Amino acid sequence: MKKRLYSKIPLAQTIVALCEAKGIYHIVISPGSRNAPLTIGFSEHPEMKCYSIVDERCAAFFALGIAQQIQKPVILLCTSGSALLNYYPAISEAFYSDIPLVVLSADRPIERIDIGDGQTIRQKNVFENHITYSANLYSEVVAETTIDDVKIRQKQHEAQKHNEREINIALNAALEKNGPVHINVPFYEPLYDKLDQPTVIPKNIPLEYSYYKFSDDLQSEMLREWNNAERKMILIGVNSPGTVDQKWVEYFAEDPSVLVLTETTSNIHHDSHVNCIDQLISTLNPGEFEMLQPDVLLTIGGMVVSKRIKGFLRQYQPKSHWHIDSKKAYDTYFCLTEHIKLQPNQFFSSFLQNAEFVKSTYKADWISVRNQRRKDHDTYLSQIPFTDLKVFESIFNGIPDQQMIQLSNSSTVRYAQLFSLKSSFKVFCNRGTSGIDGCTSTSIGAALASGIPTTLITGDLSFFYDSNGLWNEYIPSNFKIIIINNDGGGIFRILPGKEESDNFAKYFETTHGLTALHLCKMYGFEYHAANTLEETVEEIKNIYSNDSLPQLLEVFTPRKQNDSTLIDYFKHFN
Amino acid sequence: MKKRLYSKIPLAQTIVALCEAKGIYHIVISPGSRNAPLTIGFSEHPEMKCYSIVDERCAAFFALGIAQQIQKPVILLCTSGSALLNYYPAISEAFYSDIPLVVLSADRPIERIDIGDGQTIRQKNVFENHITYSANLYSEVVAETTIDDVKIRQKQHEAQKHNEREINIALNAALEKNGPVHINVPFYEPLYDKLDQPTVIPKNIPLEYSYYKFSDDLQSEMLREWNNAERKMILIGVNSPGTVDQKWVEYFAEDPSVLVLTETTSNIHHDSHVNCIDQLISTLNPGEFEMLQPDVLLTIGGMVVSKRIKGFLRQYQPKSHWHIDSKKAYDTYFCLTEHIKLQPNQFFSSFLQNAEFVKSTYKADWISVRNQRRKDHDTYLSQIPFTDLKVFESIFNGIPDQQMIQLSNSSTVRYAQLFSLKSSFKVFCNRGTSGIDGCTSTSIGAALASGIPTTLITGDLSFFYDSNGLWNEYIPSNFKIIIINNDGGGIFRILPGKEESDNFAKYFETTHGLTALHLCKMYGFEYHAANTLEETVEEIKNIYSNDSLPQLLEVFTPRKQNDSTLIDYFKHFN
Repeated sequence: MKKRLYSKIPLAQTIVALCEAKGIYHIVISPGSRNAPLTIGFSEHPEMKCYSIVDERCAAFFALGIAQQIQKPVILLCTSGSALLNYYPAISEAFYSDIPLVVLSADRPIERIDIGDGQTIRQKNVFENHITYSANLYSEVVAETTIDDVKIRQKQHEAQKHNEREINIALNAALEKNGPVHINVPFYEPLYDKLDQPTVIPKNIPLEYSYYKFSDDLQSEMLREWNNAERKMILIGVNSPGTVDQKWVEYFAEDPSVLVLTETTSNIHHDSHVNCIDQLISTLNPGEFEMLQPDVLLTIGGMVVSKRIKGFLRQYQPKSHWHIDSKKAYDTYFCLTEHIKLQPNQFFSSFLQNAEFVKSTYKADWISVRNQRRKDHDTYLSQIPFTDLKVFESIFNGIPDQQMIQLSNSSTVRYAQLFSLKSSFKVFCNRGTSGIDGCTSTSIGAALASGIPTTLITGDLSFFYDSNGLWNEYIPSNFKIIIINNDGGGIFRILPGKEESDNFAKYFETTHGLTALHLCKMYGFEYHAANTLEETVEEIKNIYSNDSLPQLLEVFTPRKQNDSTLIDYFKHFN
Repeated sequence: MKKRLYSKIPLAQTIVALCEAKGIYHIVISPGSRNAPLTIGFSEHPEMKCYSIVDERCAAFFALGIAQQIQKPVILLCTSGSALLNYYPAISEAFYSDIPLVVLSADRPIERIDIGDGQTIRQKNVFENHITYSANLYSEVVAETTIDDVKIRQKQHEAQKHNEREINIALNAALEKNGPVHINVPFYEPLYDKLDQPTVIPKNIPLEYSYYKFSDDLQSEMLREWNNAERKMILIGVNSPGTVDQKWVEYFAEDPSVLVLTETTSNIHHDSHVNCIDQLISTLNPGEFEMLQPDVLLTIGGMVVSKRIKGFLRQYQPKSHWHIDSKKAYDTYFCLTEHIKLQPNQFFSSFLQNAEFVKSTYKADWISVRNQRRKDHDTYLSQIPFTDLKVFESIFNGIPDQQMIQLSNSSTVRYAQLFSLKSSFKVFCNRGTSGIDGCTSTSIGAALASGIPTTLITGDLSFFYDSNGLWNEYIPSNFKIIIINNDGGGIFRILPGKEESDNFAKYFETTHGLTALHLCKMYGFEYHAANTLEETVEEIKNIYSNDSLPQLLEVFTPRKQNDSTLIDYFKHFN
């Protein structure tokens, strides 16, 4: 076995050792020289999983996809200068999606900033608006002839202690708070020297999980309300598979006063749920909205995709809105009354002990409406021509069980919300900032880290935006991409006030005429195209019949017909 | 003629009107909904030149390229959320290269931030580390039934006055200080309503150029020093063509005590200059460095590429270092004594009135060394095999006169510094942050805005990094790209301490095996490949013989031989 080497620079050794001590083992490296001490340190470590990605924007979303799946921090390592800034879109997504990332940016020593040296910017606190913690480390203290040895050793000791402490705080913050952290690491040259033994053994400061006390008084008060409410709505946004035990899902299914609304990204399924929210509420009149208005709204999970449910709950506010999340609660409906800082399972196992079923027709009434909507949906879908909506039906029917489905923003995830997806699907989408900027890279990271057969469903703008996402040597051979190519941002066609003008096509829809064919040739994907419903159905079968190399299916849909089919969809419900 | 329309939202009208009033006419728009009021406002304006680019990272570098050429602010317009963050690499480049950009980011109203709404981040001051000014505007005041009309009108008036003032400050800062500014613009819905007459006429606050007084005392003192110094070095970094009048160049050519060192990006040429700095100084011994050490160092222009000249001047510091720049001075050599805040022409026309030629052998001695170096260079180049160095010689010989040459970072610009380029070339490179992230997009913006036939010379990593740069419908048909494809970051091969290992190839050099062929097919470039010197020479001719569509030449060089040819180059000088 090859002998492991260490960077000669103690600061680099310290970082690698502390990551190891805290169980952080995935490192996405972008090439550079200033970060060489850390590249050497991590890539020489036999247990560290290192990935090399050139484009830092893609690297960061790839790391996000890995962290989304392993639910542990993933390291991003880059050189100094604007390289770092390319991480920002993924960092903001991680910040709002509560995904832990550790950004390690190599830097020049502080006295070399803003004096005209190359690849040098103001890296300190550069992500301030969207970061869980920023650690700004000191350079190694370099000996100067004018200072005696004792002073140098003392300064070195002080710098080392400062750095150890800051690295610990940052890594612990990523672990405790599930967010992105930034550690800025200035290095003096030489950068490439190696040792066969480390020269520092840094102190690992243990994690400090804050303990939330769910007081008996509060619980009793909430129970009193719960047990008296005939209309309780549970709304579940972005939520990783397995986060909520099935027994609680079954429990709520039995309570006639509880209506559970799940989004596609909630990864929670039961036949008693309203799983297509927009289908249910899009055509309600004010009287019906009043009947749907809950007394108690209990929310779990992250961001909610449906604009309609947000609009409804803001207008028809519940008396109480409780959000259950160990980290944070957004006052999305402007009526938040309690934020219970527990995991949903913790909350339910405590709270439901003394909860009672309440007699009510709330659930039954709305499930009956839901059932009618499903029939109307099927009727409508059976009549419409080949357009985006019809294509999504084929896609969701055609994808085999047990796939991970990665949805891009923004049309794709909105269309997906209109369908009852297979409960064996695991569904993810970057809803923290809802950007189109890294959907492909994220899905590849997720596919790799989970080992689950994965399909990315994406629009053409999202796909071409993150085309460098395919510049990635870690794409699993069973990875699939399905592009709904409607030649631009079809979502803009649904907007109020749009008109069929040159300005609309150019600055909103941004038609382009591109195809993914050439990118497939460039990056070793097998390419499939479909221009009709029959071809779509056929090619979906084809892409799942070959796992020997990644497959991409591009479905070309009629740009100018897609919007009317969708708009009429919502008019169709009785 | 089609009647011009206006956004119904006064804030959007205000921004468009003030841009017009200040002569800002170029707008690069990325698609979105929240920015619709401004997209409507600008695209409806008959004199505004609007461009539509989907990928905001590319959009921003494209705008940077336009602004680099027109030397006036260019507007970047995007929707809310992470879209904005994709501008950051280009903004930092603009910040350090003193290029004016105006970022207009649409936003949701402030009460919708951090409450779980989609595409919503903390946009306020998000570029704080690298921005000339950040204006955070108020939303329009929307009528609420609880407030009476007078109060609403008063609040609307106050918001409008605040916004007008902030927009003026930001636009004036971009114009006066040549830097990037950020205006964050929150809009309420509806976003698409139009009017056929504007409803506001905003006040245009005029520019206030600060006047620098070059005091007689200081000038006399500097003249005394100048007229007594036998060794004066003028070092010119990044500098736009035409910035320095030829008469000053001729003047310095006559003064035997003045040695002018020009970088490739200086766009200043004279036979009395040292135009290949590294060639001159790379093999000097300490005694020779002492002879080169100037008494007075006068610098003009921006960033300096040559690491060797920086190292030399830091070790062999001049007694005085004067930097002439109307905006800023970096203390690059840690010995800056005067920053004269004038344009070089202003300074020279004042200062040189009373300057005298000083008897000295300084210039003659070093021009003699330079001449020997040129011979050695030619001898060496005539002997070496087909490698990067040889290819660059062919390229610079083969490109016709009068081209704009856009160089990518970082190998490319460093190689270019070794050659005497044609004086009719106009040479540009993103040296503010020296990133590889937007060289292609920048060059396309520059080619478009200047109207000058343009060639981008780039490495493979830079090219593939900014591959979305080609997703651009404004590429002039006479635009050329020459890629030196050495299958990775060849620059890392020259580093001290590198070894031929798997880790090196993977995390530093990042070999990839990609070719630009497929991207050419995708984006309508005519593709040429060369694998030998003869093919290179031939294909260079070919790409300049067809201006009917953009041409791309990809020269494949031997990855493992390039570094030794370059390292030996520097050993070769006597």
